[in-house]
Amino acid sequence: MIDELVKKIQEKNAPVVVGLDPMLSYLPEHLLQQAIEEYGQTLEAAAKVVWQFNKAIIDAVFDLVPAVKPQVAMYEQFGVPGIAAFARTVEYCKSKGLVVIGDVKRGDIGSTSAAYAAAHIGGVKIGNITLRGFKEDFVTVNPYLGTDGVKPFVDVCREQQKGIFVLVKTSNPSSGEFQDQLIDGRPLYEMVADKVNFWGEDCIGESGYSAVGAVVGATYPEMGKVLRRRMPKAYILVPGYGAQGGKASDLACYFNKDGLGAIVNSSRGIIAAYKDEKYAEFGQKYFADASRQAVIDMIEDINAAR
Amino acid sequence: MIDELVKKIQEKNAPVVVGLDPMLSYLPEHLLQQAIEEYGQTLEAAAKVVWQFNKAIIDAVFDLVPAVKPQVAMYEQFGVPGIAAFARTVEYCKSKGLVVIGDVKRGDIGSTSAAYAAAHIGGVKIGNITLRGFKEDFVTVNPYLGTDGVKPFVDVCREQQKGIFVLVKTSNPSSGEFQDQLIDGRPLYEMVADKVNFWGEDCIGESGYSAVGAVVGATYPEMGKVLRRRMPKAYILVPGYGAQGGKASDLACYFNKDGLGAIVNSSRGIIAAYKDEKYAEFGQKYFADASRQAVIDMIEDINAAR
Repeated sequence: MIDELVKKIQEKNAPVVVGLDPMLSYLPEHLLQQAIEEYGQTLEAAAKVVWQFNKAIIDAVFDLVPAVKPQVAMYEQFGVPGIAAFARTVEYCKSKGLVVIGDVKRGDIGSTSAAYAAAHIGGVKIGNITLRGFKEDFVTVNPYLGTDGVKPFVDVCREQQKGIFVLVKTSNPSSGEFQDQLIDGRPLYEMVADKVNFWGEDCIGESGYSAVGAVVGATYPEMGKVLRRRMPKAYILVPGYGAQGGKASDLACYFNKDGLGAIVNSSRGIIAAYKDEKYAEFGQKYFADASRQAVIDMIEDINAAR
Repeated sequence: MIDELVKKIQEKNAPVVVGLDPMLSYLPEHLLQQAIEEYGQTLEAAAKVVWQFNKAIIDAVFDLVPAVKPQVAMYEQFGVPGIAAFARTVEYCKSKGLVVIGDVKRGDIGSTSAAYAAAHIGGVKIGNITLRGFKEDFVTVNPYLGTDGVKPFVDVCREQQKGIFVLVKTSNPSSGEFQDQLIDGRPLYEMVADKVNFWGEDCIGESGYSAVGAVVGATYPEMGKVLRRRMPKAYILVPGYGAQGGKASDLACYFNKDGLGAIVNSSRGIIAAYKDEKYAEFGQKYFADASRQAVIDMIEDINAAR
């Protein structure tokens, strides 16, 4: 799957992933009102709008980008109907040829991590057939529980040709509280980075990159530079561009000399572009066209910097 | 909610939580066959059995214990039908008067953690009413992203009278890889413990305990002893008893002098008791009776030690 991701990035010349994080405040008011008229003030109404919103954006951008990253929390908040909208979104993205990175940040001990891996990138055997709960290609994984929490995901990656991105250095303001703490003079995130290399060493694809990648926030470019060198075979998923403050000029250091090795996410900046002054001319009704223009602008911005 | 948990622990004289982690291999073969005949080899069939299995166990043990802890991974692996079985299990447990600890180990940055908190212990506003996606009383939270990942959960705890257990020292063999690393001579888990105190200081209930608790594995009693002293106001959720190797004699140090302050989880040892030689006489058909006996034995074992 890492090879497929690399191939699609090259074909579309776009090291960019669109974050499908449909917060309630991003959803166009007219869609929400329509759904409430049809379904009442229910979780089903919210889930319906989430799906309509996603579908319009996917239809508007799928030819431009290699991948999407739905953030499962934004679906989980709408309960079972929300999770059904997540599953439908993943399947629709796959049908449009997109690589799907499930931003689930799961992580637990042995058999429980195995169940999460089965849920999102593997499958479960019912009777004598194997079924898939959700159908992402990659998931994000939290490393706090150590190797026996991450290994079950890596095993599934190898068996099913899937991939993971392990949280190394996250983009949020307080990420340093634990991640930056020095252990024998080196920050914890570097120790996690070394484990990313270790976990991924048996899953290197033909592209030269491993199925085990890393999350490193755009908001910490100095650390990004160090981590890029430290994990030469790991694809880096870079959140924090745009709305969170990360600038394209800071992102060059996340790429390898081959121009590969990083894929930059934008969520709010793309899917809520119609709320941005820059794209206000599109108006609420043409929110998906605003997203398309925002993707075009983002690709240009990133490509000028890498 | 922490006060309600303490009250129920005292009323039932049972600092014990039953882990509802229905792995496929724990489910009685006859139930699985029946469901496959009715629903085919589908995720719906698996979800149906999970629900039947849970209901039988809940009915058999609800009068003995204060709380249950469904592990969401075991439901998530069965996709949308699995998540619906999770929601139904939570609601059924609530209807039986049980405190429900959602073992979800979520954790993300600001607005995303807020969405997870809304999903599990808070609610979302649709139109002018607030709806709840899932209905747990507590959730487990992963601290790797720092304060702005945990704070949104704490805010919901305060507003909605709910609670969380933050992962401090987990029960798995490799938990020490990152958690035990020394920072200025002190392990990372102690640093996380200090944050647990900080996050929880404004949510102390009438019981003297905080809505912000901690997860500390039964498999590391020496660390449990230190952490008990370090977090005097935090309730400790203790996984790892029984099947994972934690013994009751090791657990005394997880309790405060008031005999409170800890709640010990057992999953496999209870829900798959019928597979254990000790309870084999019950047979597969009476799996729930085996679970009841295992709960009685566990309560006696823990109470003798604390």
